Amino acid sequence: MNKAPWVSYRPEIKVLDCSIRDGGLINNHLFDDKLVKAVFDTCVEAGIDYVEVGYKGDKKIFAPDKFGAWKHCNEDDLKRIVGEEERATKISVMADAEKTDYKRDILPKDQSVIDQIRVATYIHQIPTAVDMIKDASDKGYEVTANLMALSAVKDNELLEALDILSDTPASTLVIVDSFGVFYSEQIRDYAKRFLKFAKGTGKEVGIHAHNNLQLAFANTIEAIICGVNRLDATIYGIGRGAGNCPLELLLSFLRNPKFNLRAVLKCIQDHFLELRQEIEWGCLIPYLITAHFNQHPRAAIELRSSDKKDNFVEFYDRWSDA
Amino acid sequence: MNKAPWVSYRPEIKVLDCSIRDGGLINNHLFDDKLVKAVFDTCVEAGIDYVEVGYKGDKKIFAPDKFGAWKHCNEDDLKRIVGEEERATKISVMADAEKTDYKRDILPKDQSVIDQIRVATYIHQIPTAVDMIKDASDKGYEVTANLMALSAVKDNELLEALDILSDTPASTLVIVDSFGVFYSEQIRDYAKRFLKFAKGTGKEVGIHAHNNLQLAFANTIEAIICGVNRLDATIYGIGRGAGNCPLELLLSFLRNPKFNLRAVLKCIQDHFLELRQEIEWGCLIPYLITAHFNQHPRAAIELRSSDKKDNFVEFYDRWSDA
Repeated sequence: MNKAPWVSYRPEIKVLDCSIRDGGLINNHLFDDKLVKAVFDTCVEAGIDYVEVGYKGDKKIFAPDKFGAWKHCNEDDLKRIVGEEERATKISVMADAEKTDYKRDILPKDQSVIDQIRVATYIHQIPTAVDMIKDASDKGYEVTANLMALSAVKDNELLEALDILSDTPASTLVIVDSFGVFYSEQIRDYAKRFLKFAKGTGKEVGIHAHNNLQLAFANTIEAIICGVNRLDATIYGIGRGAGNCPLELLLSFLRNPKFNLRAVLKCIQDHFLELRQEIEWGCLIPYLITAHFNQHPRAAIELRSSDKKDNFVEFYDRWSDA
Repeated sequence: MNKAPWVSYRPEIKVLDCSIRDGGLINNHLFDDKLVKAVFDTCVEAGIDYVEVGYKGDKKIFAPDKFGAWKHCNEDDLKRIVGEEERATKISVMADAEKTDYKRDILPKDQSVIDQIRVATYIHQIPTAVDMIKDASDKGYEVTANLMALSAVKDNELLEALDILSDTPASTLVIVDSFGVFYSEQIRDYAKRFLKFAKGTGKEVGIHAHNNLQLAFANTIEAIICGVNRLDATIYGIGRGAGNCPLELLLSFLRNPKFNLRAVLKCIQDHFLELRQEIEWGCLIPYLITAHFNQHPRAAIELRSSDKKDNFVEFYDRWSDA
């Protein structure tokens, strides 16, 4: 008889909800407070380890009159949502390389409710990212390094980047499948590489998957099996384009009794069904097509807001003829 | 540097489209000929190996005035769809144990356009299924044995069933995740067991996945990796409840140049977007809930046709309180 390891759970696993942060890429972070508060409270109730409420976006690049509060995450806005009550759930924000005035906008930890800064970087921005990681760590935060668009990164450049990032104070190295193109074997391959660099440094490895091929959840499971302990997910899979690993599926899978699936189901019922009528995300055919051709989903996002949104064949031919 | 086996393909892999057969469980197989013909022609153009157009349902159980033609698959109806042209695509039908008057309704192969009979059986119907397999094989058909609802079958009963089925003339033993509850590790476990019994018999192993946990495609890939060569899929994932492994995702993954993804995208654009407005299937929350509790999806299907269709929490509590 074979063993059945899946009836147990791994206590080291921590879940980060990035519903507002990644979902805000759909609508310029123009969420009302009611929704943001509902997401936050749901995550606290559901036992989620981190909630990523938004970006530390540079106001010169992202004008406050065009973007919602969660593009900048000022302390006053954060305090309105997170309240004063004690909670196990930590607050995370994302800082994009070259899109964050980090020296100014990221305050010393003792002046902020934020616990963790996640530095997102493309391969060509690594030196900037390294400086951002040091800056945030020096200011007292837990810091992660999120290496984006991995499917567009050459193997030797990845190894170089991992070598550099493993020397920084980042406590987690995150595999980011921005284009949503990876299959399980590839996730296994990346997980092994990342874990190799993390070994002996005390760093953890994380996974942020997109759902273009309906594999965000499956790839997150695959990463878990390989030893990845930091998992990104979003309520009802909200996120740019095809969206992310649905939190409700992930909690249904994780057997740690600290998690509470029911709270997430209630939030979907009360808020996300309606939200999904107002803004679009999910495994739609154009996102399968961009993933099929290993492209950023932006062309598919544009298509979906045009009058040709369901002209899949023409969209497919655009890439296959290229 | 690690190897990248996924750039190649395995020529032994064959794909079966069961859009009309499994999709018909949503609407009593009341599809019009235009749609059935579109699915069939699409599959021929897309290089699909088998098209399963429906059931050989007993007319005493499924009255012809209440069910569409694809519940019975009379020869005249089939001929209207499949035409006279030469094609590589074979015709399959499903015969459910105890729901098929197989001695009468399955004609000798030389009187039929059908190539393959798939015998679907629950664990308690194995003796009937064995007789059906022999009957269909004697009549000249390729035959498969589809063991349904595996997540509700005890290990020792499964081993007994596989022992019996591997002694029949069935050329394929199909893993059927009727409740859509399996994760990749479990699929690996089942694939190994099935393959062990198939070894040396010349039989293949197949997979039929449901999408309750957004894992139908991922589990099909996992089965492929383990050595499973017969794959079920449906256009746009159509199928009862949460639906099946989407054919368009599967073709995007399979690298055999005989397959044509574009034809399937065109069929979705021309037919399935509209069909999805008329009848419902897909990864909706109630199907996650039944899978979470390892239940048949029928309660979720009932919920979706009631005025409480979005009351996820009450539905969840119904099971968690049980």
